[in-house]
Amino acid sequence: MRQAYRDQLDGVTGQLVGMIRKAGDQIRRATTALLEADLELAEQVVTADSGINRDQHSVDEQVLQLMATQSPVTTELREVTSALRITADAERMGDLAVHVAKIARMRYPDNAVPHDMRSTFAAMGRAAEEMAGKAAAVLLSRDAEAAAELAQDDNEVDQLHRSLFRELLDERWDRGVEVAVDIALLGRYYERFADHAVEIATNVRYLVTGEIEWANTTRR
Amino acid sequence: MRQAYRDQLDGVTGQLVGMIRKAGDQIRRATTALLEADLELAEQVVTADSGINRDQHSVDEQVLQLMATQSPVTTELREVTSALRITADAERMGDLAVHVAKIARMRYPDNAVPHDMRSTFAAMGRAAEEMAGKAAAVLLSRDAEAAAELAQDDNEVDQLHRSLFRELLDERWDRGVEVAVDIALLGRYYERFADHAVEIATNVRYLVTGEIEWANTTRR
Repeated sequence: MRQAYRDQLDGVTGQLVGMIRKAGDQIRRATTALLEADLELAEQVVTADSGINRDQHSVDEQVLQLMATQSPVTTELREVTSALRITADAERMGDLAVHVAKIARMRYPDNAVPHDMRSTFAAMGRAAEEMAGKAAAVLLSRDAEAAAELAQDDNEVDQLHRSLFRELLDERWDRGVEVAVDIALLGRYYERFADHAVEIATNVRYLVTGEIEWANTTRR
Repeated sequence: MRQAYRDQLDGVTGQLVGMIRKAGDQIRRATTALLEADLELAEQVVTADSGINRDQHSVDEQVLQLMATQSPVTTELREVTSALRITADAERMGDLAVHVAKIARMRYPDNAVPHDMRSTFAAMGRAAEEMAGKAAAVLLSRDAEAAAELAQDDNEVDQLHRSLFRELLDERWDRGVEVAVDIALLGRYYERFADHAVEIATNVRYLVTGEIEWANTTRR
């Protein structure tokens, strides 16, 4: 019986890892679409999101099945409820990649990001993709220390985000309001994407340690 | 045994309703703080958020207890997993009210919202508060039709949100970039708050009908 539970949970975990990696792919492709004003790629990102949404429903259904057939107890209950939280995070990460792609699409053939801010967005995109990769790895390894590292990576995204705002609000800003609003929203999408990767890692730590982290409970 | 399950679930539902109503109070007070540049009220909103966060952890623990002691089956599984989703939505609604309050606090003693945009934000605040109230009522009544109405209310918030952006991006906009960025982010916070109220209603419909709604699966 417990072997059956383990096997089913491993199946769920494998699919969660796949969802998180897809979200990482999506933010990488959305960032490329944004920086290269690539309309076709932006459309692909928008279209591909339905795959992640279907994955969420499929995994959620499997978790319900698992609960119904295996009646999880003690730590198993934390495992199954964490799985439900993690599908929601991964699904949301996919949505945020779509938001980035939609700004690229809306401004096409123009480039939404001014030339001298491209490197900052390229760095945010890389960091976001890496965080998705690490969140997936942490879910597989259940390494609580590696999970804690994700909070450090998040600091990098925060710094990039703050540097964007400094530039936007500098009195020498001369790109107008539309560009400023795009940049502010884009910055927020990357920041939220990174937050969800941290949430996944926090869930893994909770699984391993059983402790809820109380710090930073008002999230962004 | 099933009576014990019912009693415990009713307890959980009561606390969920309380959380959602608190989130509604928070967005109302945050809106007042924003429109009246009321620093003290903004601080109160920020401080009060920890109460909602504690509620979330408390309800989540109770749901785990309920699962451990009552071994829910069939539709009960949907009830308990929906409860976990709803705590996450209500907690996030609280966070978004804090974001509004923090913009009020950051711009104090100035008013973050230009005078002629105040009525739009007052309307967004009212709609957001009402949607929280309706989401709480729907959770108690399990009225699938009333749940569907929330999607209509959300259209009102969307329209207000779009009208903000039209004003921001109008070539006659002369309030500068800082105000524009504040308005864009504030608009997004209200829109997301409303989205979470809709999500709660969607969860209730799912409880009642057992059907997942596939429309609009890429959320904002």
